[in-house]
Parts: sequence; structure tokens; C-alpha cells
Amino acid sequence: MKCHQDYAPSFRLASAGKPRPKPPGASRIGTHPGSSSPWAPCASGLLAPACFAAAAIAAMAQADIALIGLAVMGQNLILNMNDHGFVVCAFNRTVSKVDDFLANEAKGTKVLGAHSLEEMVSKLKKPRRIILLVKAGQAVDNFIEKLVPLLDIGDIIIDGGNSEYRDTMRRCRDLKDKGILFVGSGVSGGEDGARYGPSLMPGGNKEAWPHIKAIFQGIAAKVGTGEPCCDWVGDDGAGHFVKMVHNGIEYGDMQLICEAYHLMKDVLGLGHKEMAKAFEEWNKTELDSFLIEITASILKFQDADGKHLLPKIRDSAGQKGTGKWTAISALEYGVPVTLIGEAVFARCLSSLKDERIQASKKLKGPQNIPFEGDKKSFLEDIRKALYASKIISYAQGFMLLRQAATEFGWTLNYGGIALMWRGGCIIRSVFLGKIKDAFDRNPGLQNLLLDDFFKSAVENCQDSWRRAISTGVQAGIPMPCFTTALSFYDGYRHAMLPANLIQAQRDYFGAHTYELLAKPGQFIHTNWTGHGGSVSSSSYNA
Amino acid sequence: MKCHQDYAPSFRLASAGKPRPKPPGASRIGTHPGSSSPWAPCASGLLAPACFAAAAIAAMAQADIALIGLAVMGQNLILNMNDHGFVVCAFNRTVSKVDDFLANEAKGTKVLGAHSLEEMVSKLKKPRRIILLVKAGQAVDNFIEKLVPLLDIGDIIIDGGNSEYRDTMRRCRDLKDKGILFVGSGVSGGEDGARYGPSLMPGGNKEAWPHIKAIFQGIAAKVGTGEPCCDWVGDDGAGHFVKMVHNGIEYGDMQLICEAYHLMKDVLGLGHKEMAKAFEEWNKTELDSFLIEITASILKFQDADGKHLLPKIRDSAGQKGTGKWTAISALEYGVPVTLIGEAVFARCLSSLKDERIQASKKLKGPQNIPFEGDKKSFLEDIRKALYASKIISYAQGFMLLRQAATEFGWTLNYGGIALMWRGGCIIRSVFLGKIKDAFDRNPGLQNLLLDDFFKSAVENCQDSWRRAISTGVQAGIPMPCFTTALSFYDGYRHAMLPANLIQAQRDYFGAHTYELLAKPGQFIHTNWTGHGGSVSSSSYNA
Repeated sequence: MKCHQDYAPSFRLASAGKPRPKPPGASRIGTHPGSSSPWAPCASGLLAPACFAAAAIAAMAQADIALIGLAVMGQNLILNMNDHGFVVCAFNRTVSKVDDFLANEAKGTKVLGAHSLEEMVSKLKKPRRIILLVKAGQAVDNFIEKLVPLLDIGDIIIDGGNSEYRDTMRRCRDLKDKGILFVGSGVSGGEDGARYGPSLMPGGNKEAWPHIKAIFQGIAAKVGTGEPCCDWVGDDGAGHFVKMVHNGIEYGDMQLICEAYHLMKDVLGLGHKEMAKAFEEWNKTELDSFLIEITASILKFQDADGKHLLPKIRDSAGQKGTGKWTAISALEYGVPVTLIGEAVFARCLSSLKDERIQASKKLKGPQNIPFEGDKKSFLEDIRKALYASKIISYAQGFMLLRQAATEFGWTLNYGGIALMWRGGCIIRSVFLGKIKDAFDRNPGLQNLLLDDFFKSAVENCQDSWRRAISTGVQAGIPMPCFTTALSFYDGYRHAMLPANLIQAQRDYFGAHTYELLAKPGQFIHTNWTGHGGSVSSSSYNA
Repeated sequence: MKCHQDYAPSFRLASAGKPRPKPPGASRIGTHPGSSSPWAPCASGLLAPACFAAAAIAAMAQADIALIGLAVMGQNLILNMNDHGFVVCAFNRTVSKVDDFLANEAKGTKVLGAHSLEEMVSKLKKPRRIILLVKAGQAVDNFIEKLVPLLDIGDIIIDGGNSEYRDTMRRCRDLKDKGILFVGSGVSGGEDGARYGPSLMPGGNKEAWPHIKAIFQGIAAKVGTGEPCCDWVGDDGAGHFVKMVHNGIEYGDMQLICEAYHLMKDVLGLGHKEMAKAFEEWNKTELDSFLIEITASILKFQDADGKHLLPKIRDSAGQKGTGKWTAISALEYGVPVTLIGEAVFARCLSSLKDERIQASKKLKGPQNIPFEGDKKSFLEDIRKALYASKIISYAQGFMLLRQAATEFGWTLNYGGIALMWRGGCIIRSVFLGKIKDAFDRNPGLQNLLLDDFFKSAVENCQDSWRRAISTGVQAGIPMPCFTTALSFYDGYRHAMLPANLIQAQRDYFGAHTYELLAKPGQFIHTNWTGHGGSVSSSSYNA
């Protein structure tokens, strides 16, 4: 007899009518390679009584994993794990929620409950695996602080919330010192994703990966021939960084759809049914994606009074931080991720509802002139503008990932990241398969725009893209993301930009020096005015 | 006899041929109101020998102010103070620089030198005034740490570098606890500004203001009938925050000029002389400003070989952080300061020179079609696009100031800030006088665009603005700032934006809830799919 038994889950192959193949290597979880765990088989020398006590505890320890935080995401993730044969122990700060959950949503499942962290920990097989799905920030630190004294070396804490990657880096470091393996995992897909297959982006202490891989890849969304939308992302904060960029891209995708919707509605004057039909058609093209699909559903959705719901909804977009963090990271690391920046700012502007109402009474735009071109053709222009802008946004997002990898010494698998986003998450799309293909063709690809597929795609769109923007500009439609994407494209493909003038100005007023094209690396100051002005070695920034 | 004498500077009215009126109230500096200073007149009870010793020290203490950091900005600020009759003691970490400075640039002036901080402090009248003009960051903290043990309660440390406002807030707080009055002052105007009249933006511990006002307003640039471009900005980090926003606006102004230059050069095909002439003409219009003026000079400037220098300069723009910080602050406080964001990102993109060269060989743009419209008319379109975009940029900058004032409880005088920027600094312009006027008309003005002058100005420009952008878009010219400004204008004046769709999407996939236009404040969740989906109280962000 061994002191504790590994539990072999009986992988149920179907959940919610969606059959899932058994992931390779998932037949056993909880193997304990190496000696980092204090939990050794009896053969290693435990005395019989100790072994007996350990066996008694092991008998209690029935759960494969615990999850703390029973909001809808946590509940759904538990049910998903249960569907896949894993025994989950549920805990929540407000303990009554545990009982409610067991009596309702989790009724008839193998899910266990705990009324204290101690009880929860006692029910876990070793190495213990605990997922936190609580509010990012202090709540995560609070739970970690309470858990650590209850855990053994080699146990695993997984933060599945939207934590800031720097917090994850800190926690990883602190917990490593205590012998606890910390994982910060992006979890995307909303309620439905959590329930039926999310995109999971785990990073952190890689020693944890063999112990959680079967569960994570088991419950993750599958694409193609059963490839899981989950793989190990990288060291310390890499998982949460990638999730952050995912969310930033999500902001961009949503804003791009809004701009298309605005052009359809106010330039072409389409009704809700026509717009829904357009998005349904688009969903059969390169734009095939979850967000386009739900946009069609939303446009069709009618309220109890038979009227469309969408125009009744207040146009002040909320945000919870990860889009903003992406834009801030882009600024910090000097990567021109302009589209996500504009998407975040567009939400900020939308939230100034009262001020906009006031301004709308005062500030004039172009007269409302009826559209006189070919409607079908302009609709296709809008679609291509959206597609081209989307390519730019993803190119920028991957530029940021590449720069972060350099900053933090992460080895990121860009094709793997595209695959993780390919299914399960909010930005899931056929498009991400094309990105995966591009990195498969050339793992060292510097920029998506330099891949032949995407280069051709943008070039094929650009006449439409320029027409859509020109028309929108004349009609007074705000298109911050369409236009910034085009400016990026036009800037990126210019060997020579007008920034030489900036360098001349900086040297003129601040003696900041400049380089000559002919002599890169040599910094020169010119006495532009004929008076004063010496080369400044000062760090002073005028 | 008093234990120490206040020094009455003999205000020289002219420096570098620019007569300056004597600022009001500037006849005496160094008065010591209140009891915060330990340096009290003999009458307060000092014994005669102590008074005698103090008098001896006072005899040594000849300098009105000390300045640490003898890079070109520091040197010029010293010479400027000297010109205005103040005795300055110069110090530098590399002490040999002090002697060099006294033997060269400061030869024949009243400037004193010090070879140690102790010597410097001993030469200062009380309360001691010490300006740091050193590299922002650790160097400032290092000097503060060394200075504090040498100073008395009520002495003043002024950081004139480009420190981050949060650092200034921290230093202000820490030094207040030690009885030292800390001031963080923006200093703008580059070398020439420092020498002949900078824009100064002091904030921090307001108790310091009466002791430095005469020097600061004395050396600052003057506009109109002698109004100094310097006034007290506000508490703790307010001075450096305002300077940061100034620099962000400077980034925006410079990028806008680059976009105009790019359109002139590559759409209209103008030569350097024609472009210089255009900027000279523009400098007689609403655009009258330092940056437009120097752009004309730069365009005219010929190298030793008789060819124009500008096109030989490498188009990779540098940056030192304050523009980036402005954009980051905008994101943090949720203010859509899109134009500065784009200007910073434009510099990031410009710095990817090698990648752009590679991309330029691969990615195609519009064919180079000769311009067929009226050149003069399009040139005016460009000018108006620049003017309108500039109005948007300043409107956004003041939105950020207003939000920061709310965040930090600062009372900012917006008209006063416009006046501080009106002269002396890099963004100085006639335009800033118009902003001052707008806030004079309505100190509670919520947004510059709602002022009648600016509303009319933008409306007068908008046809040209839209034409310039449409033409540039068709020609493949990147215009990130022109276009983001227009998108902001068009967004700001829309009572209804398409962000209702974002809210619907967020509710669809993440049960984030939304408000109805008809019922603001009530948050509703819709079961969009007909399956699952309960209202989530989770903070989880999908």
C-alpha cells in the first residue's frame, strides 16, 4: 500500500453536448516526480504509525483541486472540471455560498465543499492544487497569506484572476522562497468559456506545470483535431501578461466593431436587421469570430416590447483595467500599440456622457448628407477596413509580447499563444489560426505584417480601408481605431518619416543632438541660431 | 542691528538686450514671516555672543540662492539669476566643473562657487534656498539626503528637474516631516529660456512661495505688460504635473508640425524654401508660436555644403519620459488625451528605423499620384488641420489637469497655467493667450471646446481639416495626430456613440450588466442567448 493514492479521473468525454477527446497524457494526475514534495511513499522510511496516520489523512484527501471564489466564473470552472472527472473542493469567503452552490448548481456532482480553508486543505490530495478566482489585488494577497501556513513544500497556488503581471511576478518570487509553486493563469471566455472550455494561459513556476497540465488542458477549449487552447506560457508573470494583451486586443476588436456599426448605421443608414445580416455574412469571411457572431445576435435581439434592445442601452462603456494596463505597458516599453490605446481612450470618451450631450448641442459637424454611393460596395469597404485594422491591432499586440519577452527574459512561443487564443476566449477566431500558421512558417517572424499572408491581406484591403475612412471623415463619424491603424500601416511602411524634424527641433531648443542618416551612432549638435548653444550632456529635458 | 540682513537685489532691468520691468513686490527677498524659521532676530532673546556668532555666519552668508547641477540649463539659470541681481552659489558633483564655470561662463559675474555642500550651505542666507537641476530620479534623492543634515527648519529645497510628480509628492511629504520646505518646479524653455527667461511652474509646500517668489518671477519670461510666466501652481506635485502635461503637449505640437511638413513635402511636393516660407507665413496667423518659428528656421538651414540639413537627419525621434508619463497619467485617470498618446507612439514607431526600412521594401501603399488640386488652397487646408488639431490637443491637456486636480485635491488656476506657458517655454504661443482669455471669461469652463472662441475656431477649420485628412489618407501619409484629433472632435460632439454595443457585448459574454438610457444608475443583465447567464457580482473580467 502506498501512503496516498493518485486519483485517476474517469474522463467524461462529453459536457453540455460537446464531445471532447481525451487529452493525451491526461490519464493520471498528481504524480510526484522529484523529491521536492515532503509527501513520500512509505517505502522511503516512514514509521508504520506515521504511515497509518498519513493514510488516514489520505483517505480524507479526495479532491484533485480546490477553487476559492464562487462567483459565476468560479462556479462554472468547477462544473467544467467536474465534467472532466476531476473532484473539486469549493470554498468561498462568504461560506454560505458554498452550501448554496452545493445545493443548487453543483447538486448531483462530485463537487465537495469546505467551510474553512483548513477543511479545504485537508480534503486535497498532494501536491495540493488551489485555484484562486477572486478579485485581483489585495484579495489575492490575503488568501495567499492565509493559505501558506496550511500548505507544504511543493503545493501549488494558481491565481486565475485578472491580476496585474507585476503582482504575479512578485508573488511567484515570494512563494518560491517559501517552497510553494505559484502559477498566474489567464482565464478567458467569460461564463460560457469557463463552463464549457475556456482559453487558459498559465505562467509562473514551471515546476507546477506537470501537476496541473492534465486538468488545465482537459478543461480548456479544443480546436482543430482536439488541440487544447492552453499551454505553458512562460516564467513568472508571462501568463498574466499574455492575458493582459489578450484583453487589450479584445478592447481593440470591440471598438473596431463599434466603428463599423457606426458607419453602417449613420453613413449607410442601415436598420438593425440589415446590420445583423451584414455581421452574419461577415462571420462567413476572414472575420469569422465570436465577437462578430454575438454582434449579429445583439443587433437582432428584441426587448419584451418587440423593439430592438441595442439602441436603448446607454453608450458609456465600462472597463476594469486590463486594456488600460496593456496601453500603459506599451508606453512603458516603447511599443506603438496605438490601436489598443485608442480603444481604451474611446471608452473613456464614451463615459463622458453628460459632457458629450452638452457638447452635442453646441459643436457642429458635417450636415447630414444622404449616402449616394453604392451601398453594397461601401459595406464591403467597411468590412475590409475592419479586417485590415484588425490585422494591424494583432501585429501591434505581438510586437508588445515580443518586447516584453526581451524585457523580462521570457521565452514566448508566439504561435502557441495564437493557438491558446484560437478557441475558448472572447477574441477566438479563425483569424488566430492564420496567425498560428504565420508563426509556424517562420517562428522568428519579426512582425505579422511581414508575413506574406498578412501582407497580401492588408494590401488587398487598403483601397477599401482608405475609402471607408475618407467617407467617414467627411460624414463626421469618429473612427479612432480605423484611422490609427491606417496611420500605423502608413508609418510602418515608410522608410523615412518626418521625425527628422522632431530631432532637429529638439536639438534647436534643447541641444539634445541628432544623428545623421549617413552617420548613425554619432550624435551631433548644430548651432542653429548662430548664438549660444553648446552640446549639452545634461539629462535635462526641456 | 539685526542678526542677519535681507539682501535687496539691485534688479538690473536688462538682460541680453531684453528689458524687463521690475516685478511687483520684488524689492526684498528673504523676509521670514512667522515662526517656522529658527533664525530669529536678536530681539527675540538670543544672548549677545550667540548673536555675534550668528552675525559672523551671516557675514559669510552672501548668497541668495544656490544651484546644484552645472549642465547647460543650470549654468544658464545661474547667469539669468545673476543678471537679475541675485547672488547665486554654484555647485556640481564633479567639483572641477564649478571652477571651470567661474573661470569661463560666469567670469565677471557675482556668482560664487562651492567645493562642497557644506561650503555651499555656509554661504547661503536664511532661509536657505537651494535649486537642484540634476537628473530626475535617484540623483535628486541622493542630494536631498546629503543636504538635509546640513539644513535648518524652514530652509527650502527646489527641484527644478523633470521629476515625476509622484516622486515630488513623496519628497514634499517626507521633507515636510523634517521641517524642510520642498518645491518641485517645472522649468521650461530649453537653454535660451533658462538664460533669458524660462517658464517656471513651482508647486509643493506653499510656505516656500513668499521666499522664492521674487527670484522666480524675476527671472521668468514676461509677456504682455510684464506679466511673469511664473506663478504658484498648487500643492505637492502640482508643479511637476503641470510641467509634465506641458511636455506632453509639446510632443503633440511637434508631431502635428511633422504631419503638416509630411503633407507639404509628399502631397504638395514643396521644396525646403517653400515649406520654410509657409511656416513663416503661418507664424503670422493664429499659429504664431515658438515651434512654428523654429520650424521655418530649421527648414531654411543649410549645411556647410550648401544643402539643406533637415533631410540628412535621421528620422528616429528620441524621448526622455515626460510625454510618456502624460499619456500614462491620462490612461490612469481615464481622460482621453489621445493626441499626446499618438504623439508618443509616433516617436516609438519612428525609432524602429531598421524595421521600417525592411517593411518599406515589402509593404505597398498608394501609387505616387501627382497632386492635381489647388496647391495654395490645400496648403491652407493643412494649416487649418494643424490649428484645429492643436485646439483639440490643448482641450485634452486641460481635461487631464482638471481630472488630476480632482484626484489630488489641488486647486489649479487654469488661466494662470495658460499664462505660465504663454512665454518662455517651448510651447509658448499667442494661442495660449487665447486660452487664458477663455478661462478669464469663464473660470469654471469645463472644456476649451465649449468656449465660444474655440468652438468657432474649430468649426471654421473643420472643412479644411476633413479635406486635409481625406487627401492624406488617399495619398498614404501617416497622420496619427491629425486623425485622432478629428476622431476626438467627432466623438465629443456625439451625444450618442456606438459604445452601447460594447456594453451589450460585455453583458453578453461576461454578464457585466448595462444601463438603459431611460434608467441610468440601474444595472441590468439580459439573458442574450436564452441559456445560462446569471447576473454576475463577480469582479472577474473576461
